[in-house]
Amino acid sequence: MSQDQLEERLRAIGAARYHSLHPFHQLLHNGKLNFGQVQAWALNRYYYQCNIPIKDSVVLSRLTSVEDRRAWRQRIIDHDGSQPGEGGIARWLKLTEGLGLDTAYVESCAGLLPGTRFAVEAYVHYVRDRTVLEAVASSLTELFSPGIIQNRVSGMLANYDFISKDTLAYFNNRLTEAPRDADFALAYVKREARRPDQQQAVLAALEFKCDVLWAQLDALYHAYVEPGHIPPGAFVPERR
Amino acid sequence: MSQDQLEERLRAIGAARYHSLHPFHQLLHNGKLNFGQVQAWALNRYYYQCNIPIKDSVVLSRLTSVEDRRAWRQRIIDHDGSQPGEGGIARWLKLTEGLGLDTAYVESCAGLLPGTRFAVEAYVHYVRDRTVLEAVASSLTELFSPGIIQNRVSGMLANYDFISKDTLAYFNNRLTEAPRDADFALAYVKREARRPDQQQAVLAALEFKCDVLWAQLDALYHAYVEPGHIPPGAFVPERR
Repeated sequence: MSQDQLEERLRAIGAARYHSLHPFHQLLHNGKLNFGQVQAWALNRYYYQCNIPIKDSVVLSRLTSVEDRRAWRQRIIDHDGSQPGEGGIARWLKLTEGLGLDTAYVESCAGLLPGTRFAVEAYVHYVRDRTVLEAVASSLTELFSPGIIQNRVSGMLANYDFISKDTLAYFNNRLTEAPRDADFALAYVKREARRPDQQQAVLAALEFKCDVLWAQLDALYHAYVEPGHIPPGAFVPERR
Repeated sequence: MSQDQLEERLRAIGAARYHSLHPFHQLLHNGKLNFGQVQAWALNRYYYQCNIPIKDSVVLSRLTSVEDRRAWRQRIIDHDGSQPGEGGIARWLKLTEGLGLDTAYVESCAGLLPGTRFAVEAYVHYVRDRTVLEAVASSLTELFSPGIIQNRVSGMLANYDFISKDTLAYFNNRLTEAPRDADFALAYVKREARRPDQQQAVLAALEFKCDVLWAQLDALYHAYVEPGHIPPGAFVPERR
C-alpha cells in the first residue's frame, strides 16, 4: 500500500466502525436518554478519561526519539493540566458534578461497569504489550472525533435541560487538541509502516481501538437502556 | 478475620455474584436459546478456555515453591492434554464442532465479541500484574463451578436436541478437577492472607473474577439475545 492508500483504509475503518454509529450515542445525542442514563454514561466515561494520561505515559516511554516525545507529551499535559481545576480530567469532573454525581464517588471508580473497566484497561495494556507502531496507531480514532463532538454538544444542549455549555466544556478543547494529535499519529504511521505486515498491524490497531470504544457503549446499553440489567456492584441511578 | 471467616466471606461473594445467577445462563440451561445463540456462547467461551493455560502459565511463573508449582502445573496439563485430541481445549472444540462451527474459524478467534476478548484478557493481565496472592485467589470461582456444571449439563441435555453427552464431555472432567484445584487455592489463600489488607485483596480478587465471568455473559446477551446488536466484525448466526 502507498501512504495515501493506508490513510484511505484507516478512514474506511472509521466510517464502518467508529462509535458515532453506536445506538447508545444516537440516543444520547438525540435526547432519548433519561437523567440516570446520562449520569451512568458520564460516570463510566470518567474511567476512560482518567486512564488517558496513564496510557499516554506508557506510549511516551516507548518513543525513543526526542522529537516524538516532545509532541506526544502534550497529550498528558492536556488531560492533567498544570494546576488544580485544569486539564481534561478536571473538566470531565465538572460534567459529572453538573450531573449531580458526588466527585469522590466518581473518582473512587466504585460504580463502574466491569465492561468499562475491561475495555479501558485493554487499551492501557495494548500500548504496553504491542509494538510502538501499533501503540501510536491505536490513537487514530482521534481522526474521527471532531465530528462526533459537534453532534454531541449541539444535540445534548438542545435536548437536555440538565446540560449546559459549562458542563460540556470538556469538549471545547478537544476540537483543537484531537486534530493536532491525529495529524502527528497519522504522519507517524504513514512514515513508519512500510512493510505490508506493518500496514496490516496499523489497520488492526485502529480496529482494536474502535472495539474498545464500542464495547464500552455495549456495556452501558445492556446495563442502563435495554434490558437494563445492572451488574452486581455497579451504579444504580435513583428514580427520576 | 479468622481463616474460617475468610472462607465464609468468599462463599458469600459467590452466592451473590457467581455467574450462575446471570440471566443468560438461566436461558441457556432452561432451553430458551436458539441454535445460533448457543453457537455464539460456545464460540466466545472458547476464548476463555484457550487462555486458561496461558493464565495458569503466568501464575506458575509466580509460584516460587516447588510444591506449589507441582500442584498448579496440573491445571495446564488438564487443559492442554498430552496428545492431539486430549485436554480441555480439545474437548471444547468437540462442543463447537458438534454445534456446526468450523474448527479453524473457532481457533482463529475472528468472530469474538470485543467484550469477550477484553474480559478474558483482563484475567490474563491480572495474574501477571497483581500480587501472587491475588493471582491465586482469582481462581476461587472454582469453588462454585460443580453446581453450575450439573445444572448446565442436565438442562442442556434435556432441552436441546442438538446437544449430546459427547458434545458436553468437556464438563465431565471438571467435576473432579475443579474441586481439587479449588481446595489447593483455598488452602493457599487461608494460609497466606494473614494481614487485613491481604484478606481484603483476596476478597477483591474473587469479586474481580466474578466480574470477568459476568461481563462475558453481558456481552453475549447484548449481542445475541436482547437487543441483539452484534458489534461490527463479530459472529453472525445463520437463520435457524
